[in-house]
Amino acid sequence: MTRGPFADATAVSRVGDGTYTAAVEPGWDIAGNANGGYLLAIGARALLDATGRPDPVSVTGHYLSPGTPGPLDVETELVKEGRRFATARALLRAAGRPVLAALGTVGDLAEPPGALLVDGRPPDLPSLESCVHVVGTDTFPPPFNRRVELHLHPEDVAFGPDGRSGIPRVRGWFRLPHDEPVDTVALLCALDAFPPTIFNTDLPVGWAPTVELTCHVRARPAPGPLRCRFTTRFVTGGFLEEDGEIWDGDGRLVAQSRQIALVPRG
Amino acid sequence: MTRGPFADATAVSRVGDGTYTAAVEPGWDIAGNANGGYLLAIGARALLDATGRPDPVSVTGHYLSPGTPGPLDVETELVKEGRRFATARALLRAAGRPVLAALGTVGDLAEPPGALLVDGRPPDLPSLESCVHVVGTDTFPPPFNRRVELHLHPEDVAFGPDGRSGIPRVRGWFRLPHDEPVDTVALLCALDAFPPTIFNTDLPVGWAPTVELTCHVRARPAPGPLRCRFTTRFVTGGFLEEDGEIWDGDGRLVAQSRQIALVPRG
Repeated sequence: MTRGPFADATAVSRVGDGTYTAAVEPGWDIAGNANGGYLLAIGARALLDATGRPDPVSVTGHYLSPGTPGPLDVETELVKEGRRFATARALLRAAGRPVLAALGTVGDLAEPPGALLVDGRPPDLPSLESCVHVVGTDTFPPPFNRRVELHLHPEDVAFGPDGRSGIPRVRGWFRLPHDEPVDTVALLCALDAFPPTIFNTDLPVGWAPTVELTCHVRARPAPGPLRCRFTTRFVTGGFLEEDGEIWDGDGRLVAQSRQIALVPRG
Repeated sequence: MTRGPFADATAVSRVGDGTYTAAVEPGWDIAGNANGGYLLAIGARALLDATGRPDPVSVTGHYLSPGTPGPLDVETELVKEGRRFATARALLRAAGRPVLAALGTVGDLAEPPGALLVDGRPPDLPSLESCVHVVGTDTFPPPFNRRVELHLHPEDVAFGPDGRSGIPRVRGWFRLPHDEPVDTVALLCALDAFPPTIFNTDLPVGWAPTVELTCHVRARPAPGPLRCRFTTRFVTGGFLEEDGEIWDGDGRLVAQSRQIALVPRG
């Protein structure tokens, strides 16, 4: 396993057959709510350990209550052990209270992925240095932005000098501080690390609690910063979806996501 | 609950605390593999019964082994009981063999959904009568196409006189035979009922086994046939995703899906 602050903050310790302890480390929360991708990464670490597989392939998390900083108990259950994949579920609890239910299929993505059809391309981003670094503070932007390093497309910085673009889209670079490599588990965190797309629209701004997040990992990313794009097409029925894509420095799609969240009440 | 052949074929009978029996009814399989959306609908019926909620909101299924016609045991477990939603998991087994693991958040979608942002529209389809009815046979098209009624856009009929479009897209009308209403559970079936998008490309044609399918239901559909669109953008790393949208006769998006499947070996 990769070492570094992210790896440490998502580590799980086996305490029994399929059961683990972990922790929401301080600073990975946003006002007391652990970042959803970070929580899913903890769940994925447990799924990988429990199955002995190296990579998440398809992982879904349902968010049940805020993950406040502090200890977590993780219970996993192997559902199917196959040749190529294993499928297992995980439940993260804090002081008995359910925080995250996850279901995942995991495997080995070491093989260099062939591309048979690619109808899309990485987001068109200025160089990382020309993008807007979201610098974490003790208030806003939150300390979480010290844990992950985001450099936003200047057009997508809702709270920047140019204001809202009117387009429900956020593009930017993602990397981990201290040159920590982004493994396939860290991709899950990246897929939920950016500001909500709707901050760039005229819709009410506020916490948009994630109900569910599904991540598909297509390949292990090449070293270096990752180009990310998040878009929302439908804000209806009190819900909004946010679709994510992550592209590595070799120009390959390495992960996709969709999450469904509740529309902020404003 | 709605009555009709689909409702009957997805019915679950409670046999204990959170446990059910059900069956893969003959004709809902394709060469011995139950349709994935149909299996997920059975799982959803159990989730709804176990939680006492009327509608699936976000349901994910991981496919573990083929669902051959015959009895199923369904085990559910309530993970979180909230005011607005409940979250539960389900495991479908056939003779002890795991077939489908599902995780779902369910609730009540009775309230007429407001639309705050809609960046999309229903697929542009000729009238149902001008589309190509996929008529089920004892061989191919399979008997499954007697259970659900698909009318494909003439441009998207890979095996029709015009051949493959070259575009990984399938558009068409969905309804259930005998005027059976399409409830929010039947939407899950519709989201996996169409021929694979890649049949319309030059990629090898064959069974593309679904690894995982996530469905988001936005609203209860208005009565009448539904307009559906399925697209694939990336066939990479041995995987392909297929994104689905379903629109009702009132022009509202009622459901979205994404599935990840294995590329056919040709």
